[in-house]
Amino acid sequence: MKKVVIIGAVAAGPKVAARIKRLDPTWDVLVIDRDDMISYGGCGIPYYVGGDVNDLEGLRSTSAHVIRDQTYFKNVKGVEILTRTEVVSIDRKGKTIRVRRLNDGQEEEITYDKLVLATGSTPVVPPLEGVTLPGVSVVATLHHAKTIKDKIAAGQVSSAVVIGGGAIGLEMAEALTDLWGLETTLVEMADQLLPSALGADMALLVQNHMEEKDVRIRLRERVTRIVGSAESGVTAVETDKGTLPCELVIMAVGVRPNAALAVQAGLTVGRAGGIVVDQQMRTSDPDIYAGGDCVELPHLVSGQQVHMPLGSLANRQGRVIGTNIVRGGERFKGTVGSFVVKVFDLGVARAGLTVAQAAAAGFDPVHAVVVQADRAHFYPSMELMYMKLIADRKTRRILGVEALGAQGDAVKARVDAVAALMPGGADIADISNLEVTYAPPFASAMDIVNSAANSLENILEGQQTPIDVMDFLSCFKKNGIKVIDVRSAVQSTPFVEKYGDRWINIPQEDLACRIDEVPGDEPLLLICGSGPRSYEAQLLLRSHGIADTRNIQGGVGMVKRSDPAFMPQP
Amino acid sequence: MKKVVIIGAVAAGPKVAARIKRLDPTWDVLVIDRDDMISYGGCGIPYYVGGDVNDLEGLRSTSAHVIRDQTYFKNVKGVEILTRTEVVSIDRKGKTIRVRRLNDGQEEEITYDKLVLATGSTPVVPPLEGVTLPGVSVVATLHHAKTIKDKIAAGQVSSAVVIGGGAIGLEMAEALTDLWGLETTLVEMADQLLPSALGADMALLVQNHMEEKDVRIRLRERVTRIVGSAESGVTAVETDKGTLPCELVIMAVGVRPNAALAVQAGLTVGRAGGIVVDQQMRTSDPDIYAGGDCVELPHLVSGQQVHMPLGSLANRQGRVIGTNIVRGGERFKGTVGSFVVKVFDLGVARAGLTVAQAAAAGFDPVHAVVVQADRAHFYPSMELMYMKLIADRKTRRILGVEALGAQGDAVKARVDAVAALMPGGADIADISNLEVTYAPPFASAMDIVNSAANSLENILEGQQTPIDVMDFLSCFKKNGIKVIDVRSAVQSTPFVEKYGDRWINIPQEDLACRIDEVPGDEPLLLICGSGPRSYEAQLLLRSHGIADTRNIQGGVGMVKRSDPAFMPQP
Repeated sequence: MKKVVIIGAVAAGPKVAARIKRLDPTWDVLVIDRDDMISYGGCGIPYYVGGDVNDLEGLRSTSAHVIRDQTYFKNVKGVEILTRTEVVSIDRKGKTIRVRRLNDGQEEEITYDKLVLATGSTPVVPPLEGVTLPGVSVVATLHHAKTIKDKIAAGQVSSAVVIGGGAIGLEMAEALTDLWGLETTLVEMADQLLPSALGADMALLVQNHMEEKDVRIRLRERVTRIVGSAESGVTAVETDKGTLPCELVIMAVGVRPNAALAVQAGLTVGRAGGIVVDQQMRTSDPDIYAGGDCVELPHLVSGQQVHMPLGSLANRQGRVIGTNIVRGGERFKGTVGSFVVKVFDLGVARAGLTVAQAAAAGFDPVHAVVVQADRAHFYPSMELMYMKLIADRKTRRILGVEALGAQGDAVKARVDAVAALMPGGADIADISNLEVTYAPPFASAMDIVNSAANSLENILEGQQTPIDVMDFLSCFKKNGIKVIDVRSAVQSTPFVEKYGDRWINIPQEDLACRIDEVPGDEPLLLICGSGPRSYEAQLLLRSHGIADTRNIQGGVGMVKRSDPAFMPQP
Repeated sequence: MKKVVIIGAVAAGPKVAARIKRLDPTWDVLVIDRDDMISYGGCGIPYYVGGDVNDLEGLRSTSAHVIRDQTYFKNVKGVEILTRTEVVSIDRKGKTIRVRRLNDGQEEEITYDKLVLATGSTPVVPPLEGVTLPGVSVVATLHHAKTIKDKIAAGQVSSAVVIGGGAIGLEMAEALTDLWGLETTLVEMADQLLPSALGADMALLVQNHMEEKDVRIRLRERVTRIVGSAESGVTAVETDKGTLPCELVIMAVGVRPNAALAVQAGLTVGRAGGIVVDQQMRTSDPDIYAGGDCVELPHLVSGQQVHMPLGSLANRQGRVIGTNIVRGGERFKGTVGSFVVKVFDLGVARAGLTVAQAAAAGFDPVHAVVVQADRAHFYPSMELMYMKLIADRKTRRILGVEALGAQGDAVKARVDAVAALMPGGADIADISNLEVTYAPPFASAMDIVNSAANSLENILEGQQTPIDVMDFLSCFKKNGIKVIDVRSAVQSTPFVEKYGDRWINIPQEDLACRIDEVPGDEPLLLICGSGPRSYEAQLLLRSHGIADTRNIQGGVGMVKRSDPAFMPQP
């Protein structure tokens, strides 16, 4: 009988254990965890706090509503789990680990044939005064979830500060605002939300949506101190820009792979701080595997090592590890950084690299921004979707895609389809002709993914000369540049009234006859509802010798979401 | 100046024209169409009839609500359109076409440098008595749409018969039932709905859903005659099984590519009846291109030529043709048959081949059926999704995917992601580890696409021994085979009460201790809510020497949708 010991019983660990027992029930499988809450959906915590999930047990139950505890693993999976047990050290030569039981401090040694590190990650807690005050919490385990929700439910919180504008920060801000009506402020050091996931232009749309939902967003702001006392708990957060009174602080500034045990055992740890594994998920010791939040992975677009802590990757890796321990042959190649988050009424997704990440990785990124209906434009439940597609100028390889919209599944559909092709090195033409399913209730005949690729190709070929909405907004405010608005008079007139002779309306269908009304000797910006008509106008003007024009990417649709105050009052 | 003539002004034709003018406005572009209604979304007709789209003009307007008529094409695109003009013949040597104006019968010759055939397809009208009676209509042009809707709106219809169980038949049956409350009967010759898109098991779920929505479905039934008079219009449809009184008949038995002109001009037409084109969308004459419903395409899984009449493909092909005429370099490689249809509250999608199509194409198909939540199982808006994944036994190449569920965008997301990988020859392992975006509001940590691939791998490896639900239902009814139900007693008891000692409940968590209650000397069927627990039970029983078991694919979730009458009364 062979014995595998698995350290960590949240996501990857239990998956390894179950897979091994399914493939070969004669294996002896032992899982060890520090906690007594095991095998839970940590990504569900914001939905527990926000009330979508009523019961903490919902996050640690199977889809058949059975609690995944030690008894469950024993009876159903044939897997032994030691909880509240810490692994102190690994003796690789002796193939032994030393464990300490947290309840009584007793230590013992356990042998293994194969060892699996599924030690997860730990939230980063910045070394600030006050981080240990009552009412200051990270979001990682079900214990945190319960503490946070109980405190709010007890009526002890009227305002909260969320530190960190990543996915968990956004989800928690929504939970606090939406269910509990707390006055919630989100503080982020960077100059945008979701800095590692989105470009600034797309992040701005998310920010505006959150602000509409009454979350106060403070960017470029650094927390300097958390104020309060052991008795009263937290009372305020101090930043380099002011004081934010609050009774609850959520720390969501990121996580770090738990690699200390691996380091101590002399295993290779990489640049991203995670345990280094090969495609079989083996560490530098062939008898030790690692998976889940504690490893780093090759990014399949940049080639760089990245830390990508997601329950989905952990589960898939767990199965690969289980198979490889029993019979070998499975590979996990890496990640393209696929990501989705619900932010109030928006689904926000991306895969690949942002423009900044792509440039940092040595690519020459060029991008298009497209706004288009997520169904046939005549279908009643249609909503606008906002997409950014990024490719390398020289090779035309697709480097990234970012999208958001009111119908999150529809957003997911586009990003997942493009992401599927990223590891294979798909180029723009592959996305121009990507065969996505079509019927009016679900897509346009020319789907937004196809349009985005077409638009990007037009930009690369010099057919279309674009300007991003954020650049338009700042340049329109700074200098006297004029806009030609090719929408109908009905749509355009409020803008003409607001911006005077800097906003010229010539509907697209009249442009050919009214070309002499276009100022031909100065730079011009072109706009329509979402971009395609002003692109055609750009071509028409160019054919008449008016070449110094830029087409505003995503048109008024993008302007409205980027800077609601720019819009005329209705 | 170079001149391109395009025959057909619905989908591919206008796209070619617009693309050429965008790339090079010096081209002279002429589009010719028999009809006076041009550039419309024919796929939207069921939604016009069903009231989702109020106005016929919605189907021929841009997303900016401008009607796409001749004036629009002239002013906005710089494209000339001749409507109500028929092309009589093509003189390839002289690079001339002969046209006839339908209004006055006048003929003239028009020269071209490049010619594009975008002649579309025509609904098949079987040679039946009565097919020309008033009240009998195909669904192809806006004229048909208007005739049908006007007749219903005038109160002249109380019951209708739809002939044909393909996508258009289903969409029309929904439109007639849902908005108008007509007593609607759908007649299909095959033994299932959507015979070219789905396996019989998945089609059965669609059928049951339609029957719940009060559409009467008659399979394996052949229409023999349509009854009525020129004055009263249609009064009934006669079939080989009876008479169906009705005042409206929708013929939706398929379409044929309009290739007559191509044939007459000596261009190559293929096995599927469509014009044959190369990857540049050129016909056998390098100065003549063809695209849209009139061509056939290589199926990128089977390698066979297929006819795939879809507005989405037509549009993408149109752009490729336009680019190739002006500067070359674009390719359209073929189709994987991606398909989606809304059927009342279900989204139904597929890509690739069905099991039958795969076998006919020389593959050795093996499949898995998986039922799983489309979000985290604890997320409140979760709905079950039903997926079938098909691969070749030897190469493990993915051959097809079929899925349906209440959240159609979520169904689309899965099918599009898998479909994207089909042309590249993805295998099961690629789908097991397919990186789809994950967050609880949008997916499970182990997404249904990953689960389906894992399940298929388990079946191929002999780990899981499956039985399809349709086989289970027929074999359970025929012989005395017993079912072991490993769900909880609460869920199982009604089944035990209904089926007596043939339905044995042993909850999964008790199975190891109660193994001696399992009849070990006879074949057994294993069931749970959706499949995974009964799979684990199968492994447990096998490890105890009980090997003659089959796991019911998709479990009770699949049974309930396949045969509602099998379920105990609540």
